[in-house]
Amino acid sequence: MKPINIGLMGVGTVGGGTATVLKRNAEEISRRAGREIRLFIAANRDLAKAREAVGPDVTLVDDAMQVVQHPEVDIVVELIGGDTVAKSLVLQAIANGKHVVTANKKLLAVHGNEIFARAQEKGVMVAFEAAVAGGIPIIKALREGLSANRIEWIAGIINGTSNFILTEMREKGASFSDVLSEAQRLGYAEADPTFDVEGHDAGHKLSIMAAIAFGIPMQFDKCYLEGISKLDGRDIRYAEELGYRVKLLGLTRRTEHGIELRVHPALIPERQLIANVNGVMNAVYVKGDAIGPTLYYGAGAGALPTASAVVADIVDVTRLLTADPEHRVPHLAFQPNQLKDLPILPIEEITSSYYLRIGAADRAGVLANITRLLAENGISIEALIQKGSTSDSSAEIVILTHRVKEKHVNAAIGAIEALDSVVGKVVRLRMEELND
Amino acid sequence: MKPINIGLMGVGTVGGGTATVLKRNAEEISRRAGREIRLFIAANRDLAKAREAVGPDVTLVDDAMQVVQHPEVDIVVELIGGDTVAKSLVLQAIANGKHVVTANKKLLAVHGNEIFARAQEKGVMVAFEAAVAGGIPIIKALREGLSANRIEWIAGIINGTSNFILTEMREKGASFSDVLSEAQRLGYAEADPTFDVEGHDAGHKLSIMAAIAFGIPMQFDKCYLEGISKLDGRDIRYAEELGYRVKLLGLTRRTEHGIELRVHPALIPERQLIANVNGVMNAVYVKGDAIGPTLYYGAGAGALPTASAVVADIVDVTRLLTADPEHRVPHLAFQPNQLKDLPILPIEEITSSYYLRIGAADRAGVLANITRLLAENGISIEALIQKGSTSDSSAEIVILTHRVKEKHVNAAIGAIEALDSVVGKVVRLRMEELND
Repeated sequence: MKPINIGLMGVGTVGGGTATVLKRNAEEISRRAGREIRLFIAANRDLAKAREAVGPDVTLVDDAMQVVQHPEVDIVVELIGGDTVAKSLVLQAIANGKHVVTANKKLLAVHGNEIFARAQEKGVMVAFEAAVAGGIPIIKALREGLSANRIEWIAGIINGTSNFILTEMREKGASFSDVLSEAQRLGYAEADPTFDVEGHDAGHKLSIMAAIAFGIPMQFDKCYLEGISKLDGRDIRYAEELGYRVKLLGLTRRTEHGIELRVHPALIPERQLIANVNGVMNAVYVKGDAIGPTLYYGAGAGALPTASAVVADIVDVTRLLTADPEHRVPHLAFQPNQLKDLPILPIEEITSSYYLRIGAADRAGVLANITRLLAENGISIEALIQKGSTSDSSAEIVILTHRVKEKHVNAAIGAIEALDSVVGKVVRLRMEELND
Repeated sequence: MKPINIGLMGVGTVGGGTATVLKRNAEEISRRAGREIRLFIAANRDLAKAREAVGPDVTLVDDAMQVVQHPEVDIVVELIGGDTVAKSLVLQAIANGKHVVTANKKLLAVHGNEIFARAQEKGVMVAFEAAVAGGIPIIKALREGLSANRIEWIAGIINGTSNFILTEMREKGASFSDVLSEAQRLGYAEADPTFDVEGHDAGHKLSIMAAIAFGIPMQFDKCYLEGISKLDGRDIRYAEELGYRVKLLGLTRRTEHGIELRVHPALIPERQLIANVNGVMNAVYVKGDAIGPTLYYGAGAGALPTASAVVADIVDVTRLLTADPEHRVPHLAFQPNQLKDLPILPIEEITSSYYLRIGAADRAGVLANITRLLAENGISIEALIQKGSTSDSSAEIVILTHRVKEKHVNAAIGAIEALDSVVGKVVRLRMEELND
């Protein structure tokens, strides 16, 4: 059978990894796919750098549009990133009837609905396993492996940079800014780390998973984002004393009233496997109504792990190349005419447990006032500890609540902060037991 | 589009679960698959019991051959188990041009090569996600999700009964036989537990995974099996003191000289996620050359989790019903003409680290003799602890070795047991760091 010709756009870290995997595992891959898959043409601005990565036999161009337009290219692999140039190129590739494999989470989270609609019209596939959690085959698990289930929720550690920082903060008792500098030195964090540590990256990935899990359109613009840059090491320590780890969690949940879609630091019980996912590793915890909880763990980034997902997608697309479109797996898991318009809940309407840290003047009555205000807002307490008073006779009260709507917690916090005996702002972190 | 008609053979635990999932999640499933999937006919010896499980609308018969022969059945689901009746039925279904979904690990591990060859000839699919690790989509991950990788090894906790027993032995300090009785009372262990606790069940599952991972035929007859019934609680305790957990592991590894294929209790470092998989849960740890280590965790048994895998297979088969056979995923991941005849290594030829417990008369010179005998056999020591002498002045010496061929350890053990100062048999457990 004729080889499959790959047109690669972007020969950076993941592009170079993809070239390496296609070459190194060529025999293994063709034994599986039933035909040769070869890198045919690649586009990169820096041609010399690209030549080093792809070897002598691949045509190299500096204009990616030439890849998209090349009549002999079967599958276009987009590894440029961002949602400007990449978007035009992907749309043009689709218009030209080419299948697309991409690792571009931002492109899909922001423009996925449009891109998938165009692909549907043209009968081509857009595969994106590498866009979420690097090499972990979580898109495949959600779209196909768990297709018998009504998915109830997904909780993911899906940003390696943030997880590295939180792991170091806990293990070394260091501050956010000290660990961030170290992560930047090690190459685990960008010079501008906003995208990772403020939850944008995790939000893109979560929006994609939510669409696939629940059969809804991509709605990144409605995803709640809260990062880890304001986390105080003290709260990580107190959480640990209470049997919890703090993780940047991407969480989406189907409720009676709509879909929760939120990224924020969260306390997770240390007995949960996912609480023990450390360093730059990723993990996604999925609850289906039939299967119960399942976990998928692996490298969420890096040249070869991400290339593993890119090339798996290439093999998948190759297998289905001549199959008629209606027998392929739908892009968003559900048939395009079967998407539902479930509302995304505003953050005030979500339900969670909470960790509250309250600075209080150490005098009689303050605890009674706080617990009264919680009770008045319908919040019941699961645990309460008072941390040793400091020299100025103030104390810290740490409270873990049962599940309650966030707006009630906000109301209670407002009232607590207004108490004379309370000092400063109340620190509030969400807490997820992940056992429902 | 015309609904897909399912013919179910065997309405026991998993069969009942399959009926439940197909019915309860009918909307979700057809939104994904693009057409209705309905339970059309079911066969069970006990018709009254089956009627309760499948509801009033499904045709019921007491002869499974009627399912296989029914002209309107598209997909036959075999949930009878065993490899006698089930084998004839599956082969007849294939001969009749019907696709098959099965959860039958024994059938495939023992007769898989024959069954897949027949299916290949007839151009039908035999799907078997439910045969390994219950609902966890590990077959899909290995065959498709990791298709870019050269798989290096797989280590799985793939027998829930054994994992429950080992978890209880560790947490309660109880003996194997006490916990087994409890497991039988709870329904986690059969009246005759041999199949589970002696490693047969794990061996079936491991043989299937090895075939898919390495592109080799099923070779259950060459799988080394060692169960947990002879485990002494003392060794679980000592292992824990040294930072390890004891798990019944199914391990298959590609080496320069052939494939290791073995089921036995093993010490795993407690920092590994898989060491923390407890109770009846399953997990499979897979190392690919590109992706690195990945873990898949979930319920390995039970009505609904196993049905989750059965129904996911039904959806997969439905999607590919009209696709031409050469564009389907090959049964064993690799194209049938691309299987390799890599040798399965005899257990003496495998390489592992080892835990040795040696009863010794507590007198000068014994340690020197033991360490000399290890050195003479090329075995280097990673750790050595001496456990407090008991009243009769004997001592226990616990040694952890570096990696070495098993035959050298066996030779050393023979020599050590021949020492005058050594009491009784040397206890030997394999130890897997799972970090290579």
